[in-house]
Order: sequence, then C-alpha cells, then structure tokens
Amino acid sequence: MECCCHNKQTLRTEEEKKKLMHRLSRLEGQIRGIKGMLENDAYCTDILVQSAAAGAALNAFNRELLNSHVRGCVASDIRSGNDEVIDDLMNTLYKLMK
Amino acid sequence: MECCCHNKQTLRTEEEKKKLMHRLSRLEGQIRGIKGMLENDAYCTDILVQSAAAGAALNAFNRELLNSHVRGCVASDIRSGNDEVIDDLMNTLYKLMK
Amino acid sequence: MECCCHNKQTLRTEEEKKKLMHRLSRLEGQIRGIKGMLENDAYCTDILVQSAAAGAALNAFNRELLNSHVRGCVASDIRSGNDEVIDDLMNTLYKLMK
Amino acid sequence: MECCCHNKQTLRTEEEKKKLMHRLSRLEGQIRGIKGMLENDAYCTDILVQSAAAGAALNAFNRELLNSHVRGCVASDIRSGNDEVIDDLMNTLYKLMK
Repeated sequence: MECCCHNKQTLRTEEEKKKLMHRLSRLEGQIRGIKGMLENDAYCTDILVQSAAAGAALNAFNRELLNSHVRGCVASDIRSGNDEVIDDLMNTLYKLMK
Repeated sequence: MECCCHNKQTLRTEEEKKKLMHRLSRLEGQIRGIKGMLENDAYCTDILVQSAAAGAALNAFNRELLNSHVRGCVASDIRSGNDEVIDDLMNTLYKLMK
Repeated sequence: MECCCHNKQTLRTEEEKKKLMHRLSRLEGQIRGIKGMLENDAYCTDILVQSAAAGAALNAFNRELLNSHVRGCVASDIRSGNDEVIDDLMNTLYKLMK
Repeated sequence: MECCCHNKQTLRTEEEKKKLMHRLSRLEGQIRGIKGMLENDAYCTDILVQSAAAGAALNAFNRELLNSHVRGCVASDIRSGNDEVIDDLMNTLYKLMK
C-alpha cells in the first residue's frame, strides 16, 4: 500500500492505483446520481443526504492516499534526510483538517 | 433561489436547477482531473490539494441547496403548520456538521 | 427544548439552560484535563485524542443549541413573517459547516 | 518548536509548552465567555458564532501540536527505524480529519 516518490512523481503499485481509481469512479457515480436526483426534482434533504455520503467517500479517498503517502514518500524522504517533505505534508494536512 | 416542496418532491426554478447542475458538472470535472493525475503518477500531496478543492466545491453545493431548502420548503411548511419539516432538517444538518 | 426570542435575546427554559451549561462545564473540564496532560509531558497523540474528543463535545453543544434555536426562534419568527431570521440562520450554518 | 519522545512521554521545550498552554487558557476563556452569554440569555446565533470561534481555536491548537509531533517524535522515530509511530499518527489523523 506504499508509494515511492521521485522528482515530485509518485510510483504507486498497480494494486494501490486500482484501489484509488475504483474509489474515484464510485465517487463519480455518486455525483452522477445526485445530478439525476436534481433532474427528477428530488426532495432537497434526500439530495443532501446523498451529497453528505459523497463527502464521506471523498474523505475516505483522502485518508487512503494520505496513508500511502506517509508510509511511502514521507518515511523514505525522512530516512534520506530530505526533511522538507514535512513542510509539504503539514501544509496538506492543514487543508484537510479545516 | 427558492424551492417549493410537495409530496416529498421539490420544484425548483429553471435558473436554480441550472446553477446547481453547473456546480455538479464542475465537481465531476474535478474528480476526472484527479483520476488523470493518478494515471500520470502525480505526487501525492498535489493530488490531495485538488481533492481538498473538490471537497470545498461539494460543500459549496450543499450550502446552496440548503439555503434554497430553508428559504423555500422549510419556511413554507412552517407557515402551513407542518413542523415535522424541522425534524428532517435537523437530521440533515447533523450529517453536514460532522 | 425550545427557546423563545425577543429583541435579540433568547429566553430558554431552566431545564434547557441547565443542560447547555452542563455541556459547557464538562467541556471546560476536558480543556483543563488537556492542560494537565501538557504539564505532565504526555505523549502528543494521547493529547490529540483528548482534544479531538473536546471538539466532538463542542460540536454536540452546537447541535443542541441549534436544534433549540430552529424549533424555537426560527419557527416562531417565520410564523410571524420575520423572514430575516433566515439570513442570520444561514450565516451561522455556513460557519458551522466549514 | 519540536518535541522529543521517549517512553510515550514527550519532552517539549519550555517555549513550546508555554505557547500551547497559552492557547488552551485562551480557549478556556472563550468557553467561560459562552457560559456567561448563556447566563445572560444571549441570542442563539450570537452564541453559535462564539462557539464556532472556539472550535477554530481548538483546531489551531491541534495543528500546532501535530506540527511539533511530526517534526519531532515522528521524524526521529522513523530515523531510528521505529515505524510503528506511523500507525499511531495515522489513527490520530483520521480522528482529526472527520
């Protein structure tokens, strides 16, 4: 489940990439579903429940990518003495903790 | 910007519907963009920044729909004495405040 | 559990006031507990777990106050035709949904 | 601004400890202020605005403690090969990203 970074690129295993892609495709499906509900004049709070679920799915994607990033890129950069990886990590975490 | 509810359906103005659809289409574009980044082995935190932006866009959609719901359905149901609209609203708000 | 608003004041029942005060006192106790942990050089993530719990307690307080506000002030103002109560409600909700 | 961990204790500099304590004391003051507002029958949304501000202050405390933890304990444990520090970090991050 780890990733490996080089020149601001990240080489992920095929399995990890597939899992992350699958999450994003499911999320796209959820957004399309919400568009369909809007098209069919669905009740507001029925739509909001679905869009809260889409938000939770996006959050789960973030958690998985972050986990793989910390275990892979961050740990390996710290071991190589490239501590500036931490500045970038913290900036990203602040965005996700809002 | 209001909506009008009837039998758990919501009749929105064409303008309101168009605005909400536009937000969702843009959000779909953002998710597609993130899939492309993953395909191209983009760096983890570059992806996370984009996905935090998609989360903010989803939140903006929720706010707009909620605003229209409260001004339309909720206000009109309260004026008609259908106070159970409030139970449903509160349950939805709790989901969005998590 | 309702409140009743007048001149930008809110008259709450003694029971409601007591319940809200109790939540805040417990929250103060949680913050004091975190100060004690810091004093005693507690491990960072042990502190962060407690402070996430304090955040959840604050959120529960917000939910209860909001619930009482919508059922009381908002519903009664809408019934009296004072729809500007909704502008103020929406601004507050946006702050809580961030 | 770093911390140094040992046996699940964290030795912080006096300056770091003072800064974190100061944040918590200010937060306690905010909670006391909210109790005073409740005592004086303050309007619901005026209270909610203050309690959203207290939530933001708690979040700022979390960010500062997390920053110091990652730069200190996490980096030093990873350099020493104690990678289990990452499991604990990820569990904490998941709680803060909710």
